[in-house]
Amino acid sequence: MPDNRPIGVFDSGVGGLTVLRALLRRLPGESTVYLGDTARVPYGTKSADVVTRYSLKNAAFLSTRDIKLLVVACNTASSVALPALGAALRIPVIGVIEPGAAAAVERTRGGVVAVIGTPGTIASGAYQRALAALRPDLRIEAKACPLFVPLAEEGWTQGDLPRLAAEAYLAPFKGRGVDTLVLGCTHYPLLESAIAHAVGDDVVLVDSAEATAAAVKSALVADRLFADGGREPSHEFYVTDLPERFADVGAAFLGRPIAGAQQIDLSF
Amino acid sequence: MPDNRPIGVFDSGVGGLTVLRALLRRLPGESTVYLGDTARVPYGTKSADVVTRYSLKNAAFLSTRDIKLLVVACNTASSVALPALGAALRIPVIGVIEPGAAAAVERTRGGVVAVIGTPGTIASGAYQRALAALRPDLRIEAKACPLFVPLAEEGWTQGDLPRLAAEAYLAPFKGRGVDTLVLGCTHYPLLESAIAHAVGDDVVLVDSAEATAAAVKSALVADRLFADGGREPSHEFYVTDLPERFADVGAAFLGRPIAGAQQIDLSF
Repeated sequence: MPDNRPIGVFDSGVGGLTVLRALLRRLPGESTVYLGDTARVPYGTKSADVVTRYSLKNAAFLSTRDIKLLVVACNTASSVALPALGAALRIPVIGVIEPGAAAAVERTRGGVVAVIGTPGTIASGAYQRALAALRPDLRIEAKACPLFVPLAEEGWTQGDLPRLAAEAYLAPFKGRGVDTLVLGCTHYPLLESAIAHAVGDDVVLVDSAEATAAAVKSALVADRLFADGGREPSHEFYVTDLPERFADVGAAFLGRPIAGAQQIDLSF
Repeated sequence: MPDNRPIGVFDSGVGGLTVLRALLRRLPGESTVYLGDTARVPYGTKSADVVTRYSLKNAAFLSTRDIKLLVVACNTASSVALPALGAALRIPVIGVIEPGAAAAVERTRGGVVAVIGTPGTIASGAYQRALAALRPDLRIEAKACPLFVPLAEEGWTQGDLPRLAAEAYLAPFKGRGVDTLVLGCTHYPLLESAIAHAVGDDVVLVDSAEATAAAVKSALVADRLFADGGREPSHEFYVTDLPERFADVGAAFLGRPIAGAQQIDLSF
């Protein structure tokens, strides 16, 4: 039996729209509901407890929209909140860490993988554990890059500033045999050219968005949750602050205009 | 009659500790209670409504500590939330905008003042209005510098990165006769050398912290609210997330170690 309920997606802000973009491309018949928690962004500099509390509130709101599956499109929230979300919800919950780690393990030739992300994501060790679980003999490097999110949000993605920041963060990887780099934050693909320049052209960059979309498709297949394609899918957007800024900044992340983002209050 | 109740101070995080530092120096006999809303930092990129809602919650918590006066040590909150705080509280409320604007008007020789701050502070127009009210013939320039807060929090206050960022933001002021620059965010004094380099040595930099501490002292005199000096003052610290990081990063802002920051939950 087809299931026309929407897929729910949340992130701390606009970054998760890169994951939604991959979902829309891979699953064009599905309806979606996206929530960006812009009143409390960023999550990456906050504790696991606080990020888990915010994630549960986001999921509670999306549940009121009758979603059939939840995508946690924020690396920090995926790193720390999946167990609590899985316990609280009766629907499948998919984060970006496992798919991103699996894609990196597929790509690496020399068995040396580096992961970069927010302080919260890196401190959680979630990528490091996911990579090691898939391939115990992997050598894993990890580094938090706190300035990349504000650089991407400021639109300073080209030129000396992102190049210098990328070199300051990524120089420690040089000469350590790294051949694959996981962009463990949804903002980082916007800084791809600065990051690639800093690590060298030989290093493969892995973005979790495509891998996550593929994992969502597999889950829909496994649980027989596909929409029937008989009607036009709908795409709703909710934010907790500044809907106009979300639509303006977010269009570059989603790759299409965002119409009618609605503001809601989650401080209940 | 002396009043031994503490002075309450809140900020979105560690930045307001520069204001507390000036207070402790100028009013060594007073007890203080500081609240850093680290679970929802930063305020500078959020809307006036959301910052006002957070400010009211911060003030409600500090009221439970029986404070005699409230200092809003965050420029963004001072820009947008003072009317709501004044209406909600029965004690004097002092922000950082008016004292900072008054200090700039005292310092300027040529009558051209620039103010820099977070997007929220600059968009509110609060400094621009306060400056114009004090001296209507002033020429006022204003510019939001969103990357300065993450640069200061990352500790990247010296070298090419802050220099390039400061030049990118402040180049528009060159050749416009600016002789006084208001650092309209409590984080910005940490980037003082990069900022001074970008605008030139002839421009006087104004930090609101000292001016705000002087305004607090005047209010205590006017309302006869001084402590009696008969007992050792106490200094309490509360945060909404990551107390250890607050103590670590905050010591540089306060200029002395921070012992025993306690975590509280304001998401009621």
